[in-house]
Formats: sequence, structure tokens, C-alpha cells
Amino acid sequence: MSVNKFMDKDLLLDTEEARTLFHKYAEDMPIIDYHCHIDPKEIAEDKNYETITDLWLAGDHYKWRLMRQCGFEERLITGKDNDRERFRAWAKTLQVAVGSPLYHWSHLELQRYFDCDLPICEKNADAIFDHCNQVLKSGKLSAKSIIKMSKVRVIGTTDDPCDDLAFHKEIQKDAGLGCKVIPTFRPDQLLLIGEESFVPYIRRLAKACDMRIFNIAGLKKALVSRMEFFNEMGCRSSDQSIAVFPFRRAEEDYEMERIFAKAMENGDMTTEERETFNTEIMLFLAENYARLGWVMQLHFGVARNTNTRMFEILGKDTGFDRIDSDAPIESLTRFLNELEFHKCLPKTVLYSLDPGMNTAIDVMSKCFAEEGVCGKVQHGAAWWFNDNLGGIRDHLRSLCEQGVIGTFIGMLTDSRCMLSYTRHEYFRRILCGYLGRLAADGLIWWDEEILGAMVRDICYYNAERFFGLA
Amino acid sequence: MSVNKFMDKDLLLDTEEARTLFHKYAEDMPIIDYHCHIDPKEIAEDKNYETITDLWLAGDHYKWRLMRQCGFEERLITGKDNDRERFRAWAKTLQVAVGSPLYHWSHLELQRYFDCDLPICEKNADAIFDHCNQVLKSGKLSAKSIIKMSKVRVIGTTDDPCDDLAFHKEIQKDAGLGCKVIPTFRPDQLLLIGEESFVPYIRRLAKACDMRIFNIAGLKKALVSRMEFFNEMGCRSSDQSIAVFPFRRAEEDYEMERIFAKAMENGDMTTEERETFNTEIMLFLAENYARLGWVMQLHFGVARNTNTRMFEILGKDTGFDRIDSDAPIESLTRFLNELEFHKCLPKTVLYSLDPGMNTAIDVMSKCFAEEGVCGKVQHGAAWWFNDNLGGIRDHLRSLCEQGVIGTFIGMLTDSRCMLSYTRHEYFRRILCGYLGRLAADGLIWWDEEILGAMVRDICYYNAERFFGLA
Amino acid sequence: MSVNKFMDKDLLLDTEEARTLFHKYAEDMPIIDYHCHIDPKEIAEDKNYETITDLWLAGDHYKWRLMRQCGFEERLITGKDNDRERFRAWAKTLQVAVGSPLYHWSHLELQRYFDCDLPICEKNADAIFDHCNQVLKSGKLSAKSIIKMSKVRVIGTTDDPCDDLAFHKEIQKDAGLGCKVIPTFRPDQLLLIGEESFVPYIRRLAKACDMRIFNIAGLKKALVSRMEFFNEMGCRSSDQSIAVFPFRRAEEDYEMERIFAKAMENGDMTTEERETFNTEIMLFLAENYARLGWVMQLHFGVARNTNTRMFEILGKDTGFDRIDSDAPIESLTRFLNELEFHKCLPKTVLYSLDPGMNTAIDVMSKCFAEEGVCGKVQHGAAWWFNDNLGGIRDHLRSLCEQGVIGTFIGMLTDSRCMLSYTRHEYFRRILCGYLGRLAADGLIWWDEEILGAMVRDICYYNAERFFGLA
Repeated sequence: MSVNKFMDKDLLLDTEEARTLFHKYAEDMPIIDYHCHIDPKEIAEDKNYETITDLWLAGDHYKWRLMRQCGFEERLITGKDNDRERFRAWAKTLQVAVGSPLYHWSHLELQRYFDCDLPICEKNADAIFDHCNQVLKSGKLSAKSIIKMSKVRVIGTTDDPCDDLAFHKEIQKDAGLGCKVIPTFRPDQLLLIGEESFVPYIRRLAKACDMRIFNIAGLKKALVSRMEFFNEMGCRSSDQSIAVFPFRRAEEDYEMERIFAKAMENGDMTTEERETFNTEIMLFLAENYARLGWVMQLHFGVARNTNTRMFEILGKDTGFDRIDSDAPIESLTRFLNELEFHKCLPKTVLYSLDPGMNTAIDVMSKCFAEEGVCGKVQHGAAWWFNDNLGGIRDHLRSLCEQGVIGTFIGMLTDSRCMLSYTRHEYFRRILCGYLGRLAADGLIWWDEEILGAMVRDICYYNAERFFGLA
Repeated sequence: MSVNKFMDKDLLLDTEEARTLFHKYAEDMPIIDYHCHIDPKEIAEDKNYETITDLWLAGDHYKWRLMRQCGFEERLITGKDNDRERFRAWAKTLQVAVGSPLYHWSHLELQRYFDCDLPICEKNADAIFDHCNQVLKSGKLSAKSIIKMSKVRVIGTTDDPCDDLAFHKEIQKDAGLGCKVIPTFRPDQLLLIGEESFVPYIRRLAKACDMRIFNIAGLKKALVSRMEFFNEMGCRSSDQSIAVFPFRRAEEDYEMERIFAKAMENGDMTTEERETFNTEIMLFLAENYARLGWVMQLHFGVARNTNTRMFEILGKDTGFDRIDSDAPIESLTRFLNELEFHKCLPKTVLYSLDPGMNTAIDVMSKCFAEEGVCGKVQHGAAWWFNDNLGGIRDHLRSLCEQGVIGTFIGMLTDSRCMLSYTRHEYFRRILCGYLGRLAADGLIWWDEEILGAMVRDICYYNAERFFGLA
Repeated sequence: MSVNKFMDKDLLLDTEEARTLFHKYAEDMPIIDYHCHIDPKEIAEDKNYETITDLWLAGDHYKWRLMRQCGFEERLITGKDNDRERFRAWAKTLQVAVGSPLYHWSHLELQRYFDCDLPICEKNADAIFDHCNQVLKSGKLSAKSIIKMSKVRVIGTTDDPCDDLAFHKEIQKDAGLGCKVIPTFRPDQLLLIGEESFVPYIRRLAKACDMRIFNIAGLKKALVSRMEFFNEMGCRSSDQSIAVFPFRRAEEDYEMERIFAKAMENGDMTTEERETFNTEIMLFLAENYARLGWVMQLHFGVARNTNTRMFEILGKDTGFDRIDSDAPIESLTRFLNELEFHKCLPKTVLYSLDPGMNTAIDVMSKCFAEEGVCGKVQHGAAWWFNDNLGGIRDHLRSLCEQGVIGTFIGMLTDSRCMLSYTRHEYFRRILCGYLGRLAADGLIWWDEEILGAMVRDICYYNAERFFGLA
């Protein structure tokens, strides 16, 4: 089932140089997916998926947004029934969503995992639906099979510090998987001081450590204990998604004690108190990341739950988030500088949602370096709304112009879906296309050995070294 | 008179796919110019233009800016005499303004309306000047003739709520025009509370309704009355251009009464009072737009009258406006969310002057949708300083990457000049060039039927449906 | 020593039109380097350079940033010894810094000044090092030889108002150089009111004028005296780099006296006082620039010394600066408007570090014009972190879209290094490539005479006229 040159083997590879770099150096490299949101339970249980609708539409708010824009009824979007009808709605959406990353991702997933070259559109919807469901029924696409097929060597999930990592333990017993599934330390809940969830969260944290938390010292002890546990479980990095990046130091030690005590009594927190608490806790955590050799991942520039009416119906992570252009680069810089000043800045990856900040972030991140460390502070791969053809190219361009592209740690999926490993392929094609074009235009010297090695570094080895996964 | 391939029939169509899409699907589509600033008097009177200088330079501050930059004397720019000399100055300007949208617009207008292929430059200035004036004298380019030649089916003018729409009535009698000329409700004056013009404006409004306005209830009644009148006259949308987008709700009902009373006594308004008044009035208007099925158009991000010295000489709209980068996306989002929460958000088009906000606006606008409505909140066509080749491409790219391009309502002229319909052609070429390139590169599946229909939707049918003009 | 088409004679010239424009009109034009940071001492003494490491790495923080990113030890970056080892580290850096401007600049310098076509990489490092040092030893690349080879007609250095310009005097005696080396008035120190350096600086200024400075009148008299002296020495412009662009007028005359007196007594300055002083002084200076027919150059959008730890070790200008995205366009506009209102706005060049402001600056700058002046307020060439292939193209695109490209004053090096004149070649290639592509695509009329003249204007004559250097 093939159609013309549509998304064929040379997709995005428009020069001889690009084709050589991709097919000879990038295509067959295994994958380190150092940042994703896959539920380890799905891997542990080697989950099988019911239908392609289940696999594609059950949790993917990227797709929901597009369908809503076309005016489809919510029952066809986040509804649970009518798999075939919902798939048809998705196909109708996609046929006029040309140029969307979802268009390319969906076709790549269809081609690579379902061996189906049909273009997704209304008239092909039923054929694709039936074909995919048959493949799924065959059991060939269980969670673990997908991991093996995709040559994934490392998966970094995202986990709350209180998590017992039971599924990770389960997975690590399976030597045949050929893939390390390791946790990532994500202490976002901890920073919601003053919210209703805070006191219960501290209790949960105490319970996870089998201790009681009375004061800051106790809190820090508990956090260290969890970090040590995560570290034993193979954790190599943390992740934090923060709306407002604060930088407000506590003036005296007892200030932190006072704020924490107040919070534990459910007192009303001032903005200053929240910012002080979060600044100090984040500095404390960062020092520990550095000590453990972890990477600190920071995500910022998101304003969440923009549509209150829909939030009340569907809850969070349902497709109503947006870019916060009021970027916290000033306070973020002070935060990094404070750690650097005390020589405890961990390796860091910065992910910003506002594409207008690409250059500013690339420039700023190069103000921090460490002897012997390649690419100490990274501008992380094009994130979320930027994770598309143009966004990735802009990101690569910024890396090239402001620094040393060869030090880049490359792609991640950031996905909840097992089929998203094709995003690595998509990225590699764009990368090789980009470099190949420069070479073909005489803008870089065509030395296959040097460029091939560099491509492999960006696709795999840089991440392996950066996260200490060798 | 033809020169090489300069702006020939395949302008901007560099792939076979692009040429097919444009020549077969886009080129012959009629035009819905849902947003312009043409004076309906010109149409009602079927105006004939004296000279090409009159037509091109009499009111076009886009052109004035370029001429000033070249150092021409103001008498050759906004002066009224010396038509030939002024035209020569414009030709000299344009010959080194390559890459400017004015360069393409002017040549397209020359080719399409004057059947003249001469490049505009100093040495051709006199020949073009004489040729065009001859055509104008022939009467072939009266206002109505231009509308017919251009296959314009709908023209949305911009009108003050107090306007009696006499010219619209006049035009609507002419069944032979083949074009609906409908008003757009533009209540900008109403929001200038606290300025000298406010009290007289309220009086004018009262008079237009043949009632008296004592309080907020009276004001609202008057506004509803005018909206109903506009609606009867075929109005399908409102338009507002706002420097600062406020979002400050009145705390109590009497607060609005107090503010309005104070304003009517010419009291000094605080910023808070102005913002409160404008927020509440805009919410009230928006609810009514929703009720009437109108589209709400919002223009923002402009700082006007940057050069005080020239403002005092020439007044407003003379080429001294600029981009205000301090974009009001936060308060705008709250405004839309408030309406959405109460289920009275009308269909909306957002036009931002700052190109750096493209992605943020596309992402935010997709947080609002309605079952059965295709593209509920639109990111409007590249506006003003963005209305050029690169700006339109960036806008299309953002639409593609962040949403469903097939839902886009397409182009408008936003112009005061009857010849600007070529901007629709220019847009259609860029659109087809853009999609054709994606198809040629194998990035979208080449299905002529699907893509052709989509192009027609973007060029015509989406706007027809969105504004309810069928 | 040639490798394929890598950076050959048609680099960046991918159309016949581009090649014609470059080779026939741009390539052989002499250079006006109106803004650089070359030490006039090097020219006066006709300095010879020891090694290529000395020439390339001794003071170039652009290169240091890249090397740090690769994790090299600081001794190989800012260290003074081990020339060969340091050069190898640089070669290793560059081989994976493809797409960086440093990559192109370094190869261009190698080709043009050392007649060496070897690609810079680890395996060629020693050969290049030896070859270059041999050339340097031959004496063929002394400071004056480089100027002559590069056909530089004007060099604008950057000089403190207190400078005695002794080296300029020295150089101006050498009639055979064929190049005017003129000072630029850079009063940055003057604006550091309230800092430790301020009082000593005022004393230095007084001494330079052989007068005493007691009050504002004295300060102004001293500044005028220095401006007159600079003017006699051929100065045609000023330059200021300002972090925060203030606009706060003094309310009464005595306010300035009070602030100055307080500063001279080392009193603590409030932010308001600093801003008031700087605003008034900058207005005063600007009036005088206008009176002298000078050009006012303003650089903004930089946050300096981001990394405190490294600042304490290495000091300023060592590669730890970043982009300040909180751009002062509002206050900058008010500043220009104030001068314009009083008809004393000098010709101005605006350089912004934040590429996201390109459009806003181009639009704003066109709000100021003067009869008889071509391009009164310029958006200066892509600066610092924007001075690269993509950055220059974006800048050109913005110039084209928002104004008249033919009025642009073109390139400068902004460099401390004598070899940087190749940046003019790089710019000219990009410019001709850009225009040639537009012509080849039929987007501009191919009139060789008009376009060739325009290219020459942008490369040379516009700057000559703008700065009054003919």
C-alpha cells in the first residue's frame, strides 16, 4: 500500500549528504528516551491495546485540541464509546490538519508499527481502523514488544518522590527486555505550598520514608532519603515543571521554619512566603542532584487550564494549556548563578515553551560550563507546542548559531504513548536533513567520518554520557 | 509589455502541486472581504479616480512611511499637488524597496487593473503615470467596476455604532452589483471614557437611537438598539482596536453607575475606572455578539502616534504607529475565559501586531472551541506590519503547527483602497505555494480532491460559513 | 589545498543573479568599518602577531564560549601558554560547531589572509597551526598590511571621551595607509553615576579638559569640549551600550544639580536619581551629536556578567554575557520622540540584542524621518549573538518587509580582531544571495543597473553618506 513519494524512506532527506547521514549513521541507532510520561505499569504488565482508537485517542490531548477545533462533539473526542466513529472523526480532522506534527507522527506510527502506508483521511478511515485493530489483536504490539521493536535502551519515566517504584522493580527483573526503565524524580507537588494538597502530601512523603516530618530539617532528611532510594533504582535526573520561577532567598534560617510551620497549620501563604520556600527547597534539591551526579530538568513557560468551564468538566491535562510568554529567564538565571557560585550547579536541561526565547536561552545557558563536562547546561529539545518540523529546525538553528551543535543531547518523546518512539526517527530525519543541507550548500565541510560520529553522538551517545547511562 | 518571469502567472508557485492548487482551485474563487476600511460613499457614488497618484498616495500611510525613509520632502508625500512629481518620488522609492509588500502589491495592482507589466522605477515612472491616468479617465475603473472585476461577493466596511448607514442602504438598492456591502460594528469611541470626546459621543449615540441616556441601563439599551439596527443592515461582526486590553470586573453593580455618572460630568477618570468600564462594556457587547451570531474581531498590540511632532502636523493614521510588544495575552485570555465560562463567547478573530506572539496566540485560541463550530476562535490573517510574504508564511506555519489549517477563514484586505483586492490573490498564491511545497516534498499526501477543497474553503467557504453569509 | 565546493568562491550565492551581484558589484568594494573595537595602538605600531593562537584566541570571548561548552579546561581557553595545545582544542571545538558563525568566520580568515583552504578540525590542526605561524612570521600580516589588503577606507574605533587620541594622531600622520582611522565618542562611564568609578571618572574628564567640574554647567562644558576635540579628530559618531534605557526627565533644573552634587560626595543614589541623571545627560549629548552632524549609535538588550563565579576570576568581557529580553523599546521611543519634538534628533542607529524585537524596532524606527536624509533612524546590522547567517538573513528580511532596504547602511565588524574584515565579505555574500534569490524567483525585477547600484550603496556608499565620510 504505497502512495507516490509521500513520507517515503527519504522523508525530509533532500540531499545526498542528508541521506547518507541518516541511513548510514542515524537510522539504526538505538534510543535513549530519557524523558517520557509512560506509565511503568503498562510496561510491567506488558499491556496489550484494544483498538487503535484506544491507543491513539484515549489520553492524547494534542489530538483532542485538533478535533475540538474542527467542531466535533466532545463525546467523539474524550468519550469512551464508539471507537469506530471516534476514529473516523480523527481521520476527518487529520485530513485537513496538513503541516501539523500530529499528521506526521500518526503516519509514521502507522507505517512503522502497523506496516500500513495508507494516508489517513475520511475515505481510508475504516480500512485503517480495521487493519490496525487486527494487528493489535495479534498481540504483536504489546508494550514490551514495542520497546524491543523500537530498540529502546533506556526509558526515563516521571515519578513522584513518594512513589514506591514497585513497577520499576518489577520491570528490572525482566532481563530480556534489553531496556533500562528508570525513574525520574519529579517533586512538583512539594512546591505547591499553601495549597490544599500540601499538608496531605507532606504526610505522604513522611510515610514513604517511614518517619515524621516536623520541621525543615525533617523535610530535607526525607527528601534526601527519597533521592537516595531513587538513585538506587537507577534514577539519573529530576524534572520540574514550574509556572513561575521564583528567586527569593530566605533572610534567616528561621524564616523557612516559620513558613513551613504555617503551611502545616494550613495558614494562608503570601506570595513572598511561597516564593521563599520554593527557592530554598529548589536550591537544596539542586545541590543534591549535583552531589548524586543527576541531571536537573526544568520545564517552564506554561499557563495551565486556560478554559475554566472545560477544566471543571474534564480536569487537567485535557488540552487547555497555553504558552506563558512572561518568561522567568531573569530569576532562572539568578537561580543557576547561585548554584554555580557555590560550585553545586548540576548538569541542567532547560525546556521553555515560548519559542521566542530560543536565542535568549541558548545564549544564557552557555554562560555556565564545567571543565570536563560536554554541554553542561543544555537547551532541551523543542518542547510540546514547539515539537514539530519548524520548531525543531528553529531549535537546531539556535543551537548551531549560539553554541556547539555537537554537544546536544538530542531527542526525547515526552509522551504518554508507547508508539511515540517514531518521534526519535522524525527528529533524526530533521537533524540529518538540516546538516546535509548545510554540507550540500558548501556551508560545512563534508567529512563523513566527523559528521557521522557527530550525528551518532546527538542521537545517542551524548545523552548516554550526559545522564551517566553507559 | 512583459519582462522575463518577473511576477508572471506562476508567481510564488514553485511546484507543480502549487500551480495546480492555485490555477485550478484558488484563482477563480470569488472574494469575501470581511474586513476593510473602504468608505461606502465611494461605492454608493460609484466613484471615479482622477489620477494614479490620487488612487495610490492620497491616503495610504504604508506608502508614506517608505517615502519618508528615503528622505523625500513631506510635500511629495502627503502634499496634494504635483501628481506627476509625487508619482515619480513613489517610483524612486519603490525601485529600492525590493522585498517590501508594497512592491508586490503595487505591481499586482498595475498588472491586474491597468493591464500594465512595466516594473515601477524612476525610468518607467512617467510612462506608467500616463498609462494609468488614461485608463482611469476611460471610466473603466470606477468603484463598482473594480468590485465586479474582482469578483467580490461581500464587503464588510467598518462603521461607528452611531452611523446611519445611509450609504449602505443606497448600495443595497443596486441589485446589479453582485456584492453585499455590509457594515461592521466598531464601538472604539465608546471605550474612550474619560477623554474629551466621550460625553459628545454618548450624546451622539443617544440621538442615533432617538432616546436619552442617563445611566448604564440606558447605555446598554442604546447599544442593543444599534446592534439590532446593524444586524438588520446585514452586519455579521464587530471590530475593536484596543491599545491596552483590560480585565477588571466591577465589584458591585453601582460601581459602573458611579463611573459612568462621573464620566458624564467630565470627571477625571482613574486607570482603574477606565479599565472597569471597558471590561464590563466589552463583556456586555460580546454577549450580544454571541446572541446575534456575530463574529467578534479584536485588534491589539498597537502603539499609536509615536512621533508627537508629526502628529501635531498631520494627525492620526499618517504612518507613525508602531508595535506594542507588551502584549495583553494574559488579560485577553481571562476575557475570553469569562465569556466561555458563561457560555456566551461569540466566534472570535484575534489579530495581533506583534509577530513574536504568533505561536502563543495560536495555542491560546485553541483552548476555546464549540461543538459544531469550525475554528471557533481564529488567529486572524497576518495583520498590518505582518501582511507581507514572510509574515503570511509565518502565520500559515503557525496555523499548521498549532492547529488545523483547514479551518482557517483566510484573507481580508484591511484596506482603504479599492485596488487592494489583489492582496487576496497574493495570499492565495502564498497559501498554494506553501501547501504545494509540502506536497512536493512528500510531507503531505497529494490528494487533489481533498487539498483542492481545503484551499477553496480557506479562500472562500470557511469565511462564508463563519460569518454566516451563505 | 582545496576541498570540493566547501566555502568556495560562490559560497552563499546559489543563483546566477546572486553571483552577478556579488562578483560584479559587491566583492571589490572597499570597506567602511564604522564600528569596531580595534585598539588604535595596534595600528599605530603596525603590530605583528606572534602565532595564530595569539591572533585568534587571545581576546575573543565568542570563541571561549564554544570551547567552554565542549568542556575544555580554562587553561586551554583563556590561558596564555601552550599555543599549539590551545589551537588543537579550538580545532576540536570547531569541527563539531558546524553552523556556527565562528565556523565560517574562521575558515574565511584562513582562506583570505593565510591562503589556506584546509578545513579546521583535529586532524588538520597541526598543519594549519604551522602554516599560519609561518605566514605570521613573514611579516606579511602586520596590522597595516591587513588594512591595506582588506581595502579598508575608514575605521571607527571606540574611545572614551577622556582619551587623548594620541594613537589616532600618530596614525593620521601616515598618509600611505589609505584608511582614515577615526575615533567614536563612547561616554558609557559617564552614565555609571553612583558607582565607585564615577567620581574618579569626573576628575579624569576634568583633567582631560584642563578645567574643574563643580556642577552640571561645568560637566556639560567639559563634555562639549571633548566632543569638539573628537570632532576635530574626525569623529563622526557616538556609541552607547546601555543595560536599562531610562526615560525620566528632571522636574526642575536644580534636581540635576542636587543629584550631581550628591554623586560627587559619593552619596547613595536612588534608581530614580540615576535614571534622571542619565536621561538628561543623554538628551544633552544627543542634541550635541545632532548639532555636530554625528550619528548616535545605541546598543541595548544586554545583561552582563551572568556568571558571578567566573566574573570574579576572569573579569568582564570574557564570554558570560546574555540577552536581556526585557527590551526598553517604550522608553527608547520616548527618548527619540523627545529629541524629534525639539528637532534635535541626530541620525541614529539602533542595535538590539534580542532578535525577537527585529520587527518592532524596524517599525518604530520608521516613525522618525527627516527630509533630505536617507534612512534617518537605522536598525543597525545584526548584532553580536545575531551576527550569523540566520540572524543576518532575518535582519535583512525585516528591513525589506518594514521599510526600504536600499537605505540600509550595511555591515560593521564590531570586532577586536584585525582579521574580522571578512565579516564584510560574509555579509555581502548573504545580501547578494538574498536579493539574487528574490530576483531568480521573479519576486523582484532583474534590472542589473538598479540592483547593482543598490548593492554598492548598502555595501559602501550609504554608510559613507550617512556618517559624512565622503
